Amino acid sequence: MKNSIRNLVLASLVLSFSEFASAQTTVKLPAPDKSNKMTLMESLEKRHSERSFSDKQLTDVQLSSVLWAACGINRPESGMITAPSAMNRQDVKVYVCRKDGVWLYLPKENALKQITSQDVRKLIAGSQDFVNAAPVVLLLTSNLENKEIGSLDAGYVSQNICLACTALGLATVPRASMDKEALHKALNLAKDEALIVNNPVGFSK
Amino acid sequence: MKNSIRNLVLASLVLSFSEFASAQTTVKLPAPDKSNKMTLMESLEKRHSERSFSDKQLTDVQLSSVLWAACGINRPESGMITAPSAMNRQDVKVYVCRKDGVWLYLPKENALKQITSQDVRKLIAGSQDFVNAAPVVLLLTSNLENKEIGSLDAGYVSQNICLACTALGLATVPRASMDKEALHKALNLAKDEALIVNNPVGFSK
Repeated sequence: MKNSIRNLVLASLVLSFSEFASAQTTVKLPAPDKSNKMTLMESLEKRHSERSFSDKQLTDVQLSSVLWAACGINRPESGMITAPSAMNRQDVKVYVCRKDGVWLYLPKENALKQITSQDVRKLIAGSQDFVNAAPVVLLLTSNLENKEIGSLDAGYVSQNICLACTALGLATVPRASMDKEALHKALNLAKDEALIVNNPVGFSK
Repeated sequence: MKNSIRNLVLASLVLSFSEFASAQTTVKLPAPDKSNKMTLMESLEKRHSERSFSDKQLTDVQLSSVLWAACGINRPESGMITAPSAMNRQDVKVYVCRKDGVWLYLPKENALKQITSQDVRKLIAGSQDFVNAAPVVLLLTSNLENKEIGSLDAGYVSQNICLACTALGLATVPRASMDKEALHKALNLAKDEALIVNNPVGFSK
């Protein structure tokens, strides 16, 4: 009798765990499109911040291309990425915040893993309404103990996003302001994972 | 008599001041070469860190091109630059450290202003001898009160340097380590100007 109760408890625990696991959907991204012809110099010449977004959505290929540029694998043999990082810690994570929730970019898998189904863009926007209009907000974190080095590392990734948006005809602006406390809770981040900067991404209005 | 002594003292003070002023030579740079054909995507694909430098020197045009990419003016009408910065403070300064001393990059003038004739590369290298072999070390500072935001801003500029080096066939690696105290003194930096990151730049050995 005792054993069967224990088994029932165990079975329901396993069930709860599966439900939790299935909430954390992982979706494969299409391959990034690296055929864009804009030169680096032209991207630097045209790089600028935009704060007005239309309601046009990004395609999955566009999203995949911006994410790869941000901190994707550029040397598959060693797992190294497009952005330098302190001691190659690859400490910067990129969260894709959309209407359908928040998704963590997995560079090695070229996939998105769902973190929550909550639309957190309002927590990022604060009083800057234009952020809510952007179809995607890329949110950058770092778990380095040294917060200044973590911020430096996020700068490398965020500039890759800015330049990729320029080349792909997308609009973006890096922003350090957001409701960090509420976002930390909504994303259920580890204590040492700090929110650093965000890039709303979309099409210019 | 008193007056003539005073005048002599004043004259010698003025002379000392002129000597100091003339030590702060400003040298115009050639225009950056923006005709490089490497695409942004290819630059991201090839971006990597190198820690071995030959004794080959950069041309002035190569140096000018890397500096323009770093934080040069890309919208002359508004004075805006290639790298985003918090509140457009353009807080990141780039110092060019060479055998012939340290020179501050002036984006608006496209010029270098000499800060000291001291070769400070050893203070940047520490125990990493390869840094002394690089013909140029670009040293990035920020005077923002918020050191995390200053570091973020330096990341944007440093990634521009990394990508420009990739496109131009130059080698670089971003490094946060250096003797900050000694450098702060050697460059006679203001108290609020913090040393953040450096990029040795040269040709791969």
